[in-house]
Amino acid sequence: MVFHYPNGDPYTQNDYPTKRIRHKNIIYSKRGMSLEDEINESNKFYLQTGIAVVHKKPTPVQIVDVYYPKRSAAVIQKAYFKQASTTDYNGVYNGKYLDFEAKETKNKTSFPLSNFHEHQVEHMRACQAQDGICFTIIKFVKHDQLFLLPAKTLFRYWDERLTGSKSIPKSVIASEGFEIQYGLHPRIPYLKYVDHLIEHEP
Amino acid sequence: MVFHYPNGDPYTQNDYPTKRIRHKNIIYSKRGMSLEDEINESNKFYLQTGIAVVHKKPTPVQIVDVYYPKRSAAVIQKAYFKQASTTDYNGVYNGKYLDFEAKETKNKTSFPLSNFHEHQVEHMRACQAQDGICFTIIKFVKHDQLFLLPAKTLFRYWDERLTGSKSIPKSVIASEGFEIQYGLHPRIPYLKYVDHLIEHEP
Repeated sequence: MVFHYPNGDPYTQNDYPTKRIRHKNIIYSKRGMSLEDEINESNKFYLQTGIAVVHKKPTPVQIVDVYYPKRSAAVIQKAYFKQASTTDYNGVYNGKYLDFEAKETKNKTSFPLSNFHEHQVEHMRACQAQDGICFTIIKFVKHDQLFLLPAKTLFRYWDERLTGSKSIPKSVIASEGFEIQYGLHPRIPYLKYVDHLIEHEP
Repeated sequence: MVFHYPNGDPYTQNDYPTKRIRHKNIIYSKRGMSLEDEINESNKFYLQTGIAVVHKKPTPVQIVDVYYPKRSAAVIQKAYFKQASTTDYNGVYNGKYLDFEAKETKNKTSFPLSNFHEHQVEHMRACQAQDGICFTIIKFVKHDQLFLLPAKTLFRYWDERLTGSKSIPKSVIASEGFEIQYGLHPRIPYLKYVDHLIEHEP
């Protein structure tokens, strides 16, 4: 069976020189894709069951050149990745605005702050000031452990990063955050822990 | 003065054959850009003054092929536009989740429902069910008139579109929505009308 791109080009797995590598294998690590996929799947479950509406934002891209073939879809022929000005996920849950990032680390005992950009932290601060619920879902991939970390812990470590620690100890994440137990439907039932977050800080 | 792309290519205005037209001039009409620009500028004002955090979502793109030149930024060499599964704008304002579309029409007396896709209306319905505040900012470009239309009016017309009207009369938009008066800072002070919306339907 031959697959085709929307513009009619046949799809073959090895039709690019080695330096022109397919996007999926490069931009995100396989592990990164998997946490993202798990969260997307969980959001789909929450959407379909009417529990919450949360979406991942598209990757921001600066489009430079577009080609319009006759009788086919427009093809972007030149574009660059732009740095995101916000976090990856936001949405609404029972009247509450949710805003979060999902991050993985191979570290075993701490989460490096270098996983964040200044503007992401600033964005979460601005959302929290509007009474949004902000947090990070952190996966320690070596032990397959997941945590929901409230933004206020991140802010505290972020503000002290120049003179203090460059990472948040896992023990702090475990005590100030919530360990997420994997489920079936959804795989990552993070809203259960958002409920705790709302209860603890009304 | 010569400008360069991030990968070092020089920028010249006419270095593409006529069929490879620059993105900006084609995908959006000039008028479309201008409402979008005005709203983006207003959102920037709201963000900087700590009033609200609202962002336009990036255009969703399906990336097919990426080239990684040595010592330069990655270049997307093949990608397609995807249909958005949500509305263009969302954010948080004083504890409330906001979700909206911005649309222009050249019509003088009504707003055609063909400006919406099914999934956008469904998305707004799902957000409203979570107590989000959903609306459309509609611009009648011929008379330079702006309205904020609550989602419930859109839903009513949308549900009757197969047997009833294919468009929402401007008179209905004016009576069930709010006419937005242009301002200076911000240009489109739409949150003032969101306040009315919240007051009227608590």
